[in-house]
Amino acid sequence: MTTKTTDIHTLLARRKTAYSLEQAFYTDPAIFELDMELIFGRHWIYVGPEPSVPEPGDYVTVELGRTSVLVVRDDDMRLNAFHNVCRHRGSRLCQQQKGMVGNLVCPYHQWTYNLQGALMFAEHMGDKFDVSQHKLKPVHLRNVGGLLFICLAEAPPADIDDMARQMEPYLAQHNLANCKIAKQMEIVEDCNWKLTMENNRECYHCRANHPELTMSLYEYGFGYAPDPKHSDGLEQYQGILNQRHAEWEAQGLPSREIDHLDDCVTGFRTERLPLDRAGESQTMNGAAACRKLLGEFGRADLGGLSFWTQPNSWHHFMSDHIVTFTVLPISAEKTMVRTTWLVHKDAVEGVDYDLDNLAAVWIATNAQDQALVEASQRGVRSDAYEPGPYSPYTEMLVEKFCNWYVTRLSALVPRP
Amino acid sequence: MTTKTTDIHTLLARRKTAYSLEQAFYTDPAIFELDMELIFGRHWIYVGPEPSVPEPGDYVTVELGRTSVLVVRDDDMRLNAFHNVCRHRGSRLCQQQKGMVGNLVCPYHQWTYNLQGALMFAEHMGDKFDVSQHKLKPVHLRNVGGLLFICLAEAPPADIDDMARQMEPYLAQHNLANCKIAKQMEIVEDCNWKLTMENNRECYHCRANHPELTMSLYEYGFGYAPDPKHSDGLEQYQGILNQRHAEWEAQGLPSREIDHLDDCVTGFRTERLPLDRAGESQTMNGAAACRKLLGEFGRADLGGLSFWTQPNSWHHFMSDHIVTFTVLPISAEKTMVRTTWLVHKDAVEGVDYDLDNLAAVWIATNAQDQALVEASQRGVRSDAYEPGPYSPYTEMLVEKFCNWYVTRLSALVPRP
Amino acid sequence: MTTKTTDIHTLLARRKTAYSLEQAFYTDPAIFELDMELIFGRHWIYVGPEPSVPEPGDYVTVELGRTSVLVVRDDDMRLNAFHNVCRHRGSRLCQQQKGMVGNLVCPYHQWTYNLQGALMFAEHMGDKFDVSQHKLKPVHLRNVGGLLFICLAEAPPADIDDMARQMEPYLAQHNLANCKIAKQMEIVEDCNWKLTMENNRECYHCRANHPELTMSLYEYGFGYAPDPKHSDGLEQYQGILNQRHAEWEAQGLPSREIDHLDDCVTGFRTERLPLDRAGESQTMNGAAACRKLLGEFGRADLGGLSFWTQPNSWHHFMSDHIVTFTVLPISAEKTMVRTTWLVHKDAVEGVDYDLDNLAAVWIATNAQDQALVEASQRGVRSDAYEPGPYSPYTEMLVEKFCNWYVTRLSALVPRP
Repeated sequence: MTTKTTDIHTLLARRKTAYSLEQAFYTDPAIFELDMELIFGRHWIYVGPEPSVPEPGDYVTVELGRTSVLVVRDDDMRLNAFHNVCRHRGSRLCQQQKGMVGNLVCPYHQWTYNLQGALMFAEHMGDKFDVSQHKLKPVHLRNVGGLLFICLAEAPPADIDDMARQMEPYLAQHNLANCKIAKQMEIVEDCNWKLTMENNRECYHCRANHPELTMSLYEYGFGYAPDPKHSDGLEQYQGILNQRHAEWEAQGLPSREIDHLDDCVTGFRTERLPLDRAGESQTMNGAAACRKLLGEFGRADLGGLSFWTQPNSWHHFMSDHIVTFTVLPISAEKTMVRTTWLVHKDAVEGVDYDLDNLAAVWIATNAQDQALVEASQRGVRSDAYEPGPYSPYTEMLVEKFCNWYVTRLSALVPRP
Repeated sequence: MTTKTTDIHTLLARRKTAYSLEQAFYTDPAIFELDMELIFGRHWIYVGPEPSVPEPGDYVTVELGRTSVLVVRDDDMRLNAFHNVCRHRGSRLCQQQKGMVGNLVCPYHQWTYNLQGALMFAEHMGDKFDVSQHKLKPVHLRNVGGLLFICLAEAPPADIDDMARQMEPYLAQHNLANCKIAKQMEIVEDCNWKLTMENNRECYHCRANHPELTMSLYEYGFGYAPDPKHSDGLEQYQGILNQRHAEWEAQGLPSREIDHLDDCVTGFRTERLPLDRAGESQTMNGAAACRKLLGEFGRADLGGLSFWTQPNSWHHFMSDHIVTFTVLPISAEKTMVRTTWLVHKDAVEGVDYDLDNLAAVWIATNAQDQALVEASQRGVRSDAYEPGPYSPYTEMLVEKFCNWYVTRLSALVPRP
Repeated sequence: MTTKTTDIHTLLARRKTAYSLEQAFYTDPAIFELDMELIFGRHWIYVGPEPSVPEPGDYVTVELGRTSVLVVRDDDMRLNAFHNVCRHRGSRLCQQQKGMVGNLVCPYHQWTYNLQGALMFAEHMGDKFDVSQHKLKPVHLRNVGGLLFICLAEAPPADIDDMARQMEPYLAQHNLANCKIAKQMEIVEDCNWKLTMENNRECYHCRANHPELTMSLYEYGFGYAPDPKHSDGLEQYQGILNQRHAEWEAQGLPSREIDHLDDCVTGFRTERLPLDRAGESQTMNGAAACRKLLGEFGRADLGGLSFWTQPNSWHHFMSDHIVTFTVLPISAEKTMVRTTWLVHKDAVEGVDYDLDNLAAVWIATNAQDQALVEASQRGVRSDAYEPGPYSPYTEMLVEKFCNWYVTRLSALVPRP
């Protein structure tokens, strides 16, 4: 019963290019419901790395708003995803975020499903009851170089094939499937999920806010366009970049930028980036954090392969470890960010790597980012907020995120 | 602003018999408001046993959603119920869940009402002020064998007379009015109130979840229909039941099932059920928990008289103690369950009964049920949830609860 | 989806004079949004005393619902108010409730504004970027005798000039600008802001609830009209009042009541009131709490100058200290009350005043009022609540508050 309301069609139609979104996109519970239905319900969503479920019977649960999805490895080592909802009276099957099971047994009345989702046993249901009609509801699952994506839609976007075809050569040599999880950490940020994503898509804020991250990251290392006022730094960085790309490509490491952040349904971007100082890893001194290198790597100074996906993930693949991030919206103004650090599965903690050293940069950076996005949320809640201009030199990827979001929502919101 | 919404008429009309309800009935705040207005606002609601207010001036308050009701015993030993709202500026009169007063004095400006609700004193209101127009608003109250029911409607369902007429012979010999409260306990469950009720209406979940309760309760002791696959257990139980019913009826104890769970506005069901092991009481060993028996009982092995009412209560009357449960919705996904244990008013704690022993079974059972209904709530919140089939052999009373609910709501929701 | 809803126009039109408001005004989130937009968004709102920001660079932030406003003193000692929102991507500029800055630097990307709100620096924005189009959004600010009022509207009510002209002679001799904050305290009350205000506008509840406050306040000292049943006390008080007003006016202290609580857009009321016992201050014994008197006062027995404003403040100016209250709504059922005690800026704690003694009365009174307004909120939430009659002898100022509120909302709610 405010005197001002605007429908979603008008909001989408009047979105101003290269400006941040209007307030309602960050605060309105009704738009959040649309985001969950149309963005998180109809696109490929990154849920975690394959080593989350290394053995038969290992499962993880993923919360997408009110929807809970179960990812489980079956006895044939296949990965399956199901809705985490019993077909009897709807109880959650698995209550924990991760675990190991033989079968999937509902705690309520012991309906029992196998790891392919078939209902094996349901007592007291009588002879006419057809177990084949009460399988767990499947969810589409796709493994791209060890990164697990799910899609809740009946007909998922087909262009994940294009992403997989382009990305797998980049990802293959890091051999994510052969890693183990060294550490996992969850933060709940008091902000809309889009502010979390926008913050990830620029390093304009890095120099003043991320002293630990910028130890190894070049200031102009990510998402900067030629800017007459900063030409010296940029030229110097561009020289380093060209030289390293040439070296890496010569070593058979695909390195050059691919950017489909806003021209594909399954939007993504990748590039191998040089690192500063020791140049090996995102650590406080730039040196590798794990002595046991990934895949077949014989050397550590390979910078970092970064990979960003719409709508909810980013990943840094280094020669010694991988850090992967998934963003899971909770409500219009609450978002969960899960960070996972992975090392070679044979690396030994305390011998090959020190966990504090491995995780120090991103623990600090996550906390800094949380403070920033929460200050943003409090600001955009004000009715005095109006969309502001993006920097043409440092916020192009934020614009691509917003453009992808607005384009996808516009395509999917039913016309009145 | 989700793209899918369904009006209440459609939801009610398409409800599928013998299947659980659709998601909206368990999660939608708008349907919760309807539940409070039409189910809890127009039916007889169990609020507690008469021994909650044994003496003149004793009161209890009951929260039905945002409505607070005061039940008080006046100086003539009559029980009265009022809205717990001062007629001046609306302050709560009594802030506590129970207490004792001489008059009802509003804490704000000391408007003073007697225990019949008449306004006796209001300072500074002037000569023209008519106290007779500012009585406390009465609430209908009905005492059925010591169980107190209220109704917020102006014209309450008349068929409580039928329930009272049928139930009083069953309840009389336990003489609830002559009991005292030994223990009371409140749990807030993170679920819709209907999941709490549905859980109460079947024992399909008991064997795997309630080891303490099933010490004294027969597995097939409640709500099981003949099932070819479990004919042995059922036949054996039916034999015990028939024998005990005959014995009890011969002793003048009405025992046979009466079931009006879904064919009356004031729906209810009763039956005296045999108990296992010592056969005396719902305790860990089946033996009576209190040496001082209720009423005129000379022996303890009388099983338990169970009594269920729509929409919000159940009760177990044994020879040595009574356990009574009231379910009070708080919000669409939050429900309070209050459990009360009663013994003979002359029983002495530590001498005639041990409180831990008396309460052990239902403290454990309540905690187990809470975990189950909360797992159900998390599951039905998923958009992947769809109504599932009830067991034709063990969930008939759940179906009767849902049928009663849907029938009552359908009758009361105004047509558009 | 309750079966009963009423639109705001009907609710406003049927408001019954001299009765409390209908439930929806105290509980409905939609009406709360209207209150924030039309009452708090279009009127002069008291935000705090001038000594909150004594030095250049001192700032305070004020939360009006979701809107955050920054009040800052610039290097020319002028006071400016701005929306606390960066013009880039909307981050909060200042995160704390108070602090000191050189410039206003956004924590996110270091956009830098001076204390007049001009954007001085924004890196990476390119040559075409016009800083003059990205000033901080100004908020109207008015200093009335050291009390700071802001208005979020583009065109604030002009009659603050009338209030200032009438109030400044009353306030001037207390020289609030020459004070310092001795103590500040915030309470969050679980009630609608209007219940907080209504409670402030009568002392009908004082005798039974505020033993500390009524040590120094006369029972009939505030807001009582001649009442045949209490003529003795009132006549006695009126005699004291007339005598003191004559004395004070003779000393050049304006004392007589001015009341525009419901006949002006910027509603207010003032009166100098005698105090009981020592007659000097609102303390437990009525004696001055601070030996260093305010302004040029040579004596302490000057009673207290009280000042009330619509919609959200009240103030007590005594010879030795000032207590000032601002009410800031948080949500439909949550309200913040900030109390500030001020003494002469040269007064020394522990020498001239004891902080516990200074604050004792209002710390106790605030806690008592919190309990009362929260009991009211719980009561008016009941659907059984209906508006009750105000006392014609003690609640006239409550009626004026409600009348002002209903009149203002009626004037500003757009017609359908």
